[in-house]
Amino acid sequence: MTTRTVTAYDWVPDFAQGHVRDLRVRWALEEEGLPYETDLLPQGTQGKPENLARQPFGQVPALTVDGKPMFESGACVWRIAEEGTVLLPKDTETRNACLSWHFAALNSVEPSLTMMAMLFFQAMNPDIGEEGVAKVRPGIRSMAEKRLTQLADALGERDHLVADRFTTADLMMTTVLRTAESLDLLEPLPRLRAYLDHHTARPAFRAALEAQLQPFRENAPRYERAG
Amino acid sequence: MTTRTVTAYDWVPDFAQGHVRDLRVRWALEEEGLPYETDLLPQGTQGKPENLARQPFGQVPALTVDGKPMFESGACVWRIAEEGTVLLPKDTETRNACLSWHFAALNSVEPSLTMMAMLFFQAMNPDIGEEGVAKVRPGIRSMAEKRLTQLADALGERDHLVADRFTTADLMMTTVLRTAESLDLLEPLPRLRAYLDHHTARPAFRAALEAQLQPFRENAPRYERAG
Ligand SMILES: N[C@@H](CCC(=O)N[C@@H](CS)C(=O)NCC(=O)O)C(=O)O
Ligand SMILES: N[C@@H](CCC(=O)N[C@@H](CS)C(=O)NCC(=O)O)C(=O)O
Repeated sequence: MTTRTVTAYDWVPDFAQGHVRDLRVRWALEEEGLPYETDLLPQGTQGKPENLARQPFGQVPALTVDGKPMFESGACVWRIAEEGTVLLPKDTETRNACLSWHFAALNSVEPSLTMMAMLFFQAMNPDIGEEGVAKVRPGIRSMAEKRLTQLADALGERDHLVADRFTTADLMMTTVLRTAESLDLLEPLPRLRAYLDHHTARPAFRAALEAQLQPFRENAPRYERAG
Repeated sequence: MTTRTVTAYDWVPDFAQGHVRDLRVRWALEEEGLPYETDLLPQGTQGKPENLARQPFGQVPALTVDGKPMFESGACVWRIAEEGTVLLPKDTETRNACLSWHFAALNSVEPSLTMMAMLFFQAMNPDIGEEGVAKVRPGIRSMAEKRLTQLADALGERDHLVADRFTTADLMMTTVLRTAESLDLLEPLPRLRAYLDHHTARPAFRAALEAQLQPFRENAPRYERAG
């Protein structure tokens, strides 16, 4: 029997709970009905050699299948989709459209949101503050808004990016849009809100989210005692 | 016979010449020995409906194979690699390592460089200036430096990210490192400089670069007259 192990954290601070990127891999595995184990890293150990050997940037997630590790949530989800029967239509044209949107989520939409998130955290740093980010935020914000508006235009009234059914494209884009929502960027784009709500209602998403959160609840007392 | 068409620009400003992302797709096609045509968009037309229909963010590149379009340089290169015989080892474990690094280039290394580039352009904007970016740059710079250092550590003394031979992982990472070089971030990392020089010396890279630049030279007079 194939064994699959996802690396994740045993606990993260509140703001990150439900947003750690192992969620993408868990969600894909849930959609495909593939059982998996987890290897939960204690906070602060992600940069140690053992984790660097499977994730060169000292992060999570990694996915190890029968002892062979791979990393990058985008790569892990694509591989799961390829091997499974649910997330990736087999017809070449539709599959390539999924490939395009899978990358678009990670390389066209997410980077503009990462910049917004970075500024958010910098503004909270007392050495920088709101004042320190004030001049650069408008340009970065308008880039993020532009990408989201282009996405909303491409989606139109549909619930799915490709082929009128849920695919890896929607899985990746939904996880990216959850970041946009946390940054309050979806209010002017009700269609993207509806798209997000539609896909996060999927049982496989709920199961993946709960699986990420459960150890955080269990381990919180230990970290709270330590902090 | 299969026909392949890459969208690119007929001209871009100096700073972007040799850095437009159709280069990645051209390079992959050159490595695989697959002939292609180009559809050169005049500057300013990338947001028109005709281009949005194949590239929802109004950008280049798109790759159209036998009339079926796809977009995102990462997706196009991966698809070319899958169909070809050169860029992607067939052994599953090695192939999945390529998949991991292919995504790492685009989702772990490139975004931190995009932020640096964004600040570079904002500093040149007279309404923002060096002063407007000064507080946020150190954090963003140290993030970029961290990613590049982790990459250098993972590479060690090797010339290739995967399998001791040139793969799609090296193709993507090399194009990303060219941005790091433009931003003067490689000086403290001579191993990454050597890696970059090694791979940009490949005849297929030189051919792809020349193919991108040639129309710019031809069309420059027209744009210079207009500007
Ligand atoms: N591009 C990577 C990003 C992974 C990532 O950002 N991981 C975060 C959690 S969501 C992490 O482990 N951060 C801890 C750190 O950087 O030290 C992927 O998609 O897998
Ligand atoms: N994630 C996309 C990015 C494409 C991209 O940034 N294209 C740039 C040229 S390198 C472009 O067309 N920019 C013009 C614009 O945004 O208006 C990809 O990798 O294909």
